[in-house]
Amino acid sequence: MSTPKKPNNEAIERLIANRKKHTESLTLDQLVTGIRANNRGVLSESITLVESSEVQQAALGQEVLQACLPYSGNSIRIGITGVPGVGKSTFIEEFGLFLAERGKKVAVLAIDPSSEVSKGSILGDKTRMNNLAVHPNAYIRPTATSGSLGGVARKTRETILLTEAAGFEVILIETVGVGQSETEVHSMTDFFLLLMLAGAGDELQGIKRGIMEMADAILITKADGENVKKANLARSEYKNALHLFPAKSNEWIPRVETVSSSEKRGIEKTWDIITSFNELVTSNGAKNKNRDAQQIYWMHETVKEQLLKEFTATSGIQEEITKQSSALKSGKTTSYQAATKIINYYKNAKR
Amino acid sequence: MSTPKKPNNEAIERLIANRKKHTESLTLDQLVTGIRANNRGVLSESITLVESSEVQQAALGQEVLQACLPYSGNSIRIGITGVPGVGKSTFIEEFGLFLAERGKKVAVLAIDPSSEVSKGSILGDKTRMNNLAVHPNAYIRPTATSGSLGGVARKTRETILLTEAAGFEVILIETVGVGQSETEVHSMTDFFLLLMLAGAGDELQGIKRGIMEMADAILITKADGENVKKANLARSEYKNALHLFPAKSNEWIPRVETVSSSEKRGIEKTWDIITSFNELVTSNGAKNKNRDAQQIYWMHETVKEQLLKEFTATSGIQEEITKQSSALKSGKTTSYQAATKIINYYKNAKR
Repeated sequence: MSTPKKPNNEAIERLIANRKKHTESLTLDQLVTGIRANNRGVLSESITLVESSEVQQAALGQEVLQACLPYSGNSIRIGITGVPGVGKSTFIEEFGLFLAERGKKVAVLAIDPSSEVSKGSILGDKTRMNNLAVHPNAYIRPTATSGSLGGVARKTRETILLTEAAGFEVILIETVGVGQSETEVHSMTDFFLLLMLAGAGDELQGIKRGIMEMADAILITKADGENVKKANLARSEYKNALHLFPAKSNEWIPRVETVSSSEKRGIEKTWDIITSFNELVTSNGAKNKNRDAQQIYWMHETVKEQLLKEFTATSGIQEEITKQSSALKSGKTTSYQAATKIINYYKNAKR
Repeated sequence: MSTPKKPNNEAIERLIANRKKHTESLTLDQLVTGIRANNRGVLSESITLVESSEVQQAALGQEVLQACLPYSGNSIRIGITGVPGVGKSTFIEEFGLFLAERGKKVAVLAIDPSSEVSKGSILGDKTRMNNLAVHPNAYIRPTATSGSLGGVARKTRETILLTEAAGFEVILIETVGVGQSETEVHSMTDFFLLLMLAGAGDELQGIKRGIMEMADAILITKADGENVKKANLARSEYKNALHLFPAKSNEWIPRVETVSSSEKRGIEKTWDIITSFNELVTSNGAKNKNRDAQQIYWMHETVKEQLLKEFTATSGIQEEITKQSSALKSGKTTSYQAATKIINYYKNAKR
């Protein structure tokens, strides 16, 4: 990956250049120094290590992460979601450029389960985010989407920490507005931004239940030309709807605005909203409190995932589950009795 | 428990009467026959067995349940929630009486975690549901709330099956509109009824996020006297809000109505709505599909609960979790690394 501006550590650049020829690995120290010097090549390489399923590489990745921890955390982590077609990547490009041009270091991480089957928006994003991708203050990285949902979440969380250690101050984590990923992204970000199209109806079908309640701000996109009136109407509708939701414990009152990425309207307003949010939750302690809670949450989730993984890997357990599921559906047993049999099978198999 | 009408099985009545003197247990056959004869005493005793933490009693309870399974399922299971003060018990009494007087056999099960500390509404319910409690077609039973949330959920699910085997056709499962219990009740019922007060605002604070989206119908309560106008306004507000939620896969479009329990208005309408719902989901197969999914869901939840229980019972594991949580909060480790250490501790402890 090349950047228009030379990184401030030329030794690292030389090192990478030389290493590529010899296919040597960088050492832990070199990786950490490179990240700290905001070297994109080293950052990308470190993220690849953290994402790796190869044991030794993954172990080195964890060491890099551990060494970077003291330098992480100084950012605002922003989750961005919305159904395909809402104009997410166009918005992210404009929003990212707005920040980058004002000297902010911006990282864009994208979780996109559909990218695996090459029909997703990642490719589109890459094409459309061309201007942002080459900006010296920006860094774009799609998250590898192979593996379990929990695995993807872990990789994204750890990538956030690495980009922070590299000095990025605004981390945009993009997700597609379908499936599980919004809840996960919400659980690893400070601010959750939901993009919506004007004309509530079919467009909403793709939004998972509960997503709207997680939003710290809703942006009605494509508020330009003939759409302006419809967007303003949608804005007041959503404002009313948000009004019905309970107050958030961090004292933040969710906002609804209209934006036009093509006319670059609403972009600065969006940043103002996020800045106000950041000031509020920093001063009242809710930001740190939320991050602590998120970390503890993920720790417990990972423990549960590992326990289940061990359980699921038990020889013959799937057959037992299928058997009990059939008995349940035919009314021959209860959920509790079926579960008890499965657990007994598991315990016997372990002996 | 006495009922105004004698049950149709006098032999069972005699048996219970005699047994009480000798503190003998009824046999499995006697219990099942008693339940099938709609004998409230035997039903209550069987529920107590299912709820028991004493091993032998619990085992007998499971046998009774197993024997009752072929006779269960012929009902509409209705979950009812709303914040304290919304008029839930008054509504349930009027609604239950309306059905009981039309010859429907109605069972009311109440999950109320607050009853343990004797400040809950169960006592209030009992007092206020006097008319329903003595009606020959009605049966009221609060669910024992000791034990884990999962335990309470299991007891309620199994109580539903027993009351169905006893011939009850309408099962009302009441929960308090705070905490976890709504989601659980939603996962064991066919129809979810949310009671709301007019004047959206502070009253909503107690409603957990996402509850509104689970509702198949919202009733605005206390729509009488000076409240009528406010209730009608709330009705259209909620209708608009529900409109923003995605369509349900069972093809049901949630309804919003106003009710007055004191003036007995909206009660019949509510039953009409539930009847329409039941006809729709019976004919399109969604009712059975949903019940199957619920059973499988609870089987998996119980398996997870058992796995976690075994994990949590590991000697020293709480200390390890506390240690790792502290390391997390002070920024010395990541969620993944902390979880890995906890899992390693667990695996070593098991060896």
